[in-house]
Amino acid sequence: MDNIFTPAVASMQASAIREIFKLIAQKDIISFAAGIPAPELFPAKEWAAITNDILTTNPTPALIYGVTEGYVPLRELTLKRMADMGMACSTDRLVITSGAQQAIDLTAKVLLNVGDGVIIEKPSFIGSLNSFRSYGAQLFDVDVEADGMNLEQTEEILKTQNIKFIYTIATFQNPSGVTMSLQKRKDLLALAKKYDVFILEDNPYGELRFSGEAVPTIKSMDTEGRVIYAGTYSKTLAPGVRVGFCFAREDIIDRVVVVKQVNDVHTPVLNQMMVYEYITRHDFDAHIRNCSEIYGKKCALMLDCMDKHFPKECTYTRPDGGIFILCTMPEGTDTKELLGEVIQNKVAYVPGNTFMADIDAPSNIFRLNFSVTKEDDIVKGIEILGGILRKHV
Amino acid sequence: MDNIFTPAVASMQASAIREIFKLIAQKDIISFAAGIPAPELFPAKEWAAITNDILTTNPTPALIYGVTEGYVPLRELTLKRMADMGMACSTDRLVITSGAQQAIDLTAKVLLNVGDGVIIEKPSFIGSLNSFRSYGAQLFDVDVEADGMNLEQTEEILKTQNIKFIYTIATFQNPSGVTMSLQKRKDLLALAKKYDVFILEDNPYGELRFSGEAVPTIKSMDTEGRVIYAGTYSKTLAPGVRVGFCFAREDIIDRVVVVKQVNDVHTPVLNQMMVYEYITRHDFDAHIRNCSEIYGKKCALMLDCMDKHFPKECTYTRPDGGIFILCTMPEGTDTKELLGEVIQNKVAYVPGNTFMADIDAPSNIFRLNFSVTKEDDIVKGIEILGGILRKHV
Repeated sequence: MDNIFTPAVASMQASAIREIFKLIAQKDIISFAAGIPAPELFPAKEWAAITNDILTTNPTPALIYGVTEGYVPLRELTLKRMADMGMACSTDRLVITSGAQQAIDLTAKVLLNVGDGVIIEKPSFIGSLNSFRSYGAQLFDVDVEADGMNLEQTEEILKTQNIKFIYTIATFQNPSGVTMSLQKRKDLLALAKKYDVFILEDNPYGELRFSGEAVPTIKSMDTEGRVIYAGTYSKTLAPGVRVGFCFAREDIIDRVVVVKQVNDVHTPVLNQMMVYEYITRHDFDAHIRNCSEIYGKKCALMLDCMDKHFPKECTYTRPDGGIFILCTMPEGTDTKELLGEVIQNKVAYVPGNTFMADIDAPSNIFRLNFSVTKEDDIVKGIEILGGILRKHV
Repeated sequence: MDNIFTPAVASMQASAIREIFKLIAQKDIISFAAGIPAPELFPAKEWAAITNDILTTNPTPALIYGVTEGYVPLRELTLKRMADMGMACSTDRLVITSGAQQAIDLTAKVLLNVGDGVIIEKPSFIGSLNSFRSYGAQLFDVDVEADGMNLEQTEEILKTQNIKFIYTIATFQNPSGVTMSLQKRKDLLALAKKYDVFILEDNPYGELRFSGEAVPTIKSMDTEGRVIYAGTYSKTLAPGVRVGFCFAREDIIDRVVVVKQVNDVHTPVLNQMMVYEYITRHDFDAHIRNCSEIYGKKCALMLDCMDKHFPKECTYTRPDGGIFILCTMPEGTDTKELLGEVIQNKVAYVPGNTFMADIDAPSNIFRLNFSVTKEDDIVKGIEILGGILRKHV
């Protein structure tokens, strides 16, 4: 049998980021390639007590099949937290998903026919781009500027192409750390309305703000069910529990639930209970403030070191939250090629090509993570990296 | 925006079984509608100790991102168990999935273009049928006989239709409890070879044998990578942990991993560790033998009660394992319509239409589960059900 796979799936590449992780798995590398919160902030001890309670006192609900929509107390709690963040649309519904990745993937599955267009940010998160590709979508990218995606480019594409939705990580974007301005959020929503398309707002980092003023989510300004919101507990608690959610118009959630039912039946109930019980028994907002404060200090330290050691030809973003800084080397630098030398010197970043619609084209950008690395390793690693960069400008 | 969903997803219905569960959620109903192992056999206490150990001594690997292919020790252990069951194909690979449902769904995603054909058993498991439908597949059904699917009907379809794979639950089938004979397994594999199609062998119940001789899996006779095998720990440990696996030709697993990466990134590592540590610390085979013995006794009791109380016009299967008995009422009986009266009398089954390609057509079959219900409730519930059935023959 030839051509056994669907054309969309046949052409997919494994996530280059996850392949890089395999490269840099050696213990003595100072890695700035991560995309996770600091493991020492995971509430492991609290969860040890919680799982012990659940599994010794009333284990059955945690271990039998649950409803596809999610563990009801966690759904209600999440809806309340959404309302507290200004997203209280009573006609919308929420489904718990196995990470925000599943919210994105199932949204793509229900909406995208082969050949449908999706507008994406350039650069953007490879996991989402690959999901859209897996359904045969065409990707159209627009530049990310200091205040978010370029809306002139966005409208030009909306005018000429068959677009189903616009995908944006509007707050502390991955990989740029950039936050879309309030004005651009309003204008983007107006564009979506004008051209009758959806917005898929992916907001894994939004709660991790350590400086600047909060900007409302695009979803919070959505009066007509045009925004599909993907959220997660991966970045505020721990990514490995795989608990996220999707919040959108009722008919969309209804379809997401139907395809989730045939995808993994439901997100493991024990994992949902772990999140619910942690938030109920402990001060989750204080935990988030503590994480954000630590990340803010690490970010400031990293930027200080970069100011000192990086060549002036290398520019970079100064995020108000999240876990990433994006660096731009002079045109002509191929950061994927440069990674070999960087790893030889026991440091690592994620090269820019992995965030692009065209993953094979050389890119002069790279992503640094500041949440995971310890402070003395930040100092040491940035100095080493700066030395290499200075040789290549 | 009209027609926002893909045609395949737009036409999907929520699982009728899961909708029935909502109907019969009242506590005083004796339900034979379940599709799960007995909750009192879940290793909850053992898992309380295991999760406590993991989360207090070395929590990070359980809570950060894991590799998409699955937790390596569990993969190796599962491969060893597969080899012990005669499935030791060294060129095949294994990926841990979020339940066998995900193995089936992602296999369908990588193989099925809109319009591709899938041969299914009649009756069969709705979760799989709906997954195939969600990718726009055409379903072609063949009768399940006492020794498994009708191969004349199968070949007739293979001759005339564009078939991608044959989906079979060959052992203790859901919902029939029937096991395909060794000869039919060989003949089915020969047919798959002759017409160059794949077989998707779904085997959630195969280890739960309580009588008769073991029959080798179709996968164990597969010398050319034609069988994709979906396995799970849901029925031998607990369904809520959502840990299953897919075992198939390397190129197929490679594509399944790529789409799993964009679907849920990985199955939660803590859940994979729970399964691995349980099997490593305890006598899993003894646990399976114990479960099978208990189910065998319950099955025998249920059949005794059915022999006593059911009208002779109602025929039923006598399974050698698994958790289901399938009953057939005389032609013209609509078991979906009859369910209303059954529930009014505080008993429940799953009506046959939910196992059919055409879910709206009336069916004279219904499924009984014997693993969950306590013995005195089996006696009581079957007597009540028998009384209702006798009125309708």
